[in-house]
Amino acid sequence: MPAAFPHVLMGPGDDCAVVRPPGGAMLLTVDQVIERRHFAPGTPLDLVARKAVARSISDLAAMGATPWCALATGALPAGFAQSDADALCVSIKKWAEHWNCPMVGGDLATMPDAASPLTLTVTAIGVAHPSGHVVTRAGAKPGDQVYVTGALGGSFDRATGLGRHLTFEPRLREAAWLLDTFGERVHAMIDVSDGLGRDAARIASASGVRIELQASAIPRNAGVSDWRVAAGDGEDYELLLCVEAGCDLPPICPVTGAALTRVGAARVGSGCVICHQAEELDAAAMGWDH
Amino acid sequence: MPAAFPHVLMGPGDDCAVVRPPGGAMLLTVDQVIERRHFAPGTPLDLVARKAVARSISDLAAMGATPWCALATGALPAGFAQSDADALCVSIKKWAEHWNCPMVGGDLATMPDAASPLTLTVTAIGVAHPSGHVVTRAGAKPGDQVYVTGALGGSFDRATGLGRHLTFEPRLREAAWLLDTFGERVHAMIDVSDGLGRDAARIASASGVRIELQASAIPRNAGVSDWRVAAGDGEDYELLLCVEAGCDLPPICPVTGAALTRVGAARVGSGCVICHQAEELDAAAMGWDH
Repeated sequence: MPAAFPHVLMGPGDDCAVVRPPGGAMLLTVDQVIERRHFAPGTPLDLVARKAVARSISDLAAMGATPWCALATGALPAGFAQSDADALCVSIKKWAEHWNCPMVGGDLATMPDAASPLTLTVTAIGVAHPSGHVVTRAGAKPGDQVYVTGALGGSFDRATGLGRHLTFEPRLREAAWLLDTFGERVHAMIDVSDGLGRDAARIASASGVRIELQASAIPRNAGVSDWRVAAGDGEDYELLLCVEAGCDLPPICPVTGAALTRVGAARVGSGCVICHQAEELDAAAMGWDH
Repeated sequence: MPAAFPHVLMGPGDDCAVVRPPGGAMLLTVDQVIERRHFAPGTPLDLVARKAVARSISDLAAMGATPWCALATGALPAGFAQSDADALCVSIKKWAEHWNCPMVGGDLATMPDAASPLTLTVTAIGVAHPSGHVVTRAGAKPGDQVYVTGALGGSFDRATGLGRHLTFEPRLREAAWLLDTFGERVHAMIDVSDGLGRDAARIASASGVRIELQASAIPRNAGVSDWRVAAGDGEDYELLLCVEAGCDLPPICPVTGAALTRVGAARVGSGCVICHQAEELDAAAMGWDH
């Protein structure tokens, strides 16, 4: 292990890795990417590895945590070239370390058929923000302002299978800045993986509040002309957060330059709607179940 | 989470689980089971879940560690019944808790085809033995005695696909007793997953010693008449360990009643052989690469 990760006492190669535990609360998540489900056949393996790692790192960011270490598995189609398997391992390790998250263990196995989908999992372990504040989905309160980082929609290019769903930057630094700056006033947070509408509805449900989003306020990526696409596409991996009333965020994160846009508010009640002109649309229906 | 696991501050349901880190060094491992590779189609899902959990728990046992918490994924064939997915989750949780290892997170996703193999992964996190001694594969020394727990061979019933490979008991209690009793004199340990010969060769290689096993000493399960089967079958999940010369183990573990059998010794040199009558056979060739 590089000296950059002194908490890794023993990396891959034995029955288990050995790691010094973090001082604060430990955050744990696991996610998977499956060929033809989360990425198209022919996607460069380096981008497949990147997405597998980034999805789990994004879950850490969504709780305000910092990466500590990770483990990965690869279930390879029969006949997968050894050189490709090696390249995949190199890429997984590289991307994990890119986000300061040493890869301490893993397992590769071969699936029975050549037609079986390449399937990767990444388990990521993080440590809570130094303040000890862990931002869940359940902390939103009536009166909270709802913000989103960056811009939404169009993350998957239907023509090529490529796009931001493969190259997004997990919002670790924005999350850290938010907690450094606003502390406990950051009440709830989630990363937008299944669509703004659906993920906002998850915060509303977990927190016992009603969330009202303004369609016209939703920041859209270049080329996304319809707010419905921005609200429903998913795979943005932007942060959606609820901050205390009166806690006004600047228009951009001073650390990274990412946009911070107010898209709505939390109220007394339940459910999540997107307000468009005179209409209120059910937000939970807008999105995907990945 | 049950009150039995007070270190689990927040279980599944948010972006991450939140866990109080263990006091001692943290052990981490991940393993996977793939349909038609690690279990036969039609295997009861409860036994599939059991095997997925037990394999990772066995890796903790092989380092002398105690389970702390775990995460799991399931990649399900298209069309997998929701009731089966629910049953699988219940079984994974049940078996993890059976070994005192709360399941704190997970992910289910669907694979593109109905013919895709059901694939489970379990990431298990443990805490080192209270003495702080972590038993690796690399600590064997010339003169060490080599022991194995239980009996070997015939774990997979070719007629039914069932057998001990689905129902083995990870040797957590035996490992704890060994460390409680012999401490640092337990020099090296591994769980026998790929065959006694191959796994003994791994200890020899990692430790820089030569290991000589006696074919006639290898304990065989009922119905296993050939020592070659016992040495090469794999999927036994028994512990293979090297203890300091003069450190004589009793014939059975007083805590669990598991047999403890001396099967060989470590010498100066390299490689691993099985001695049968006047012959020395290369042990590394006996086994499987799961």
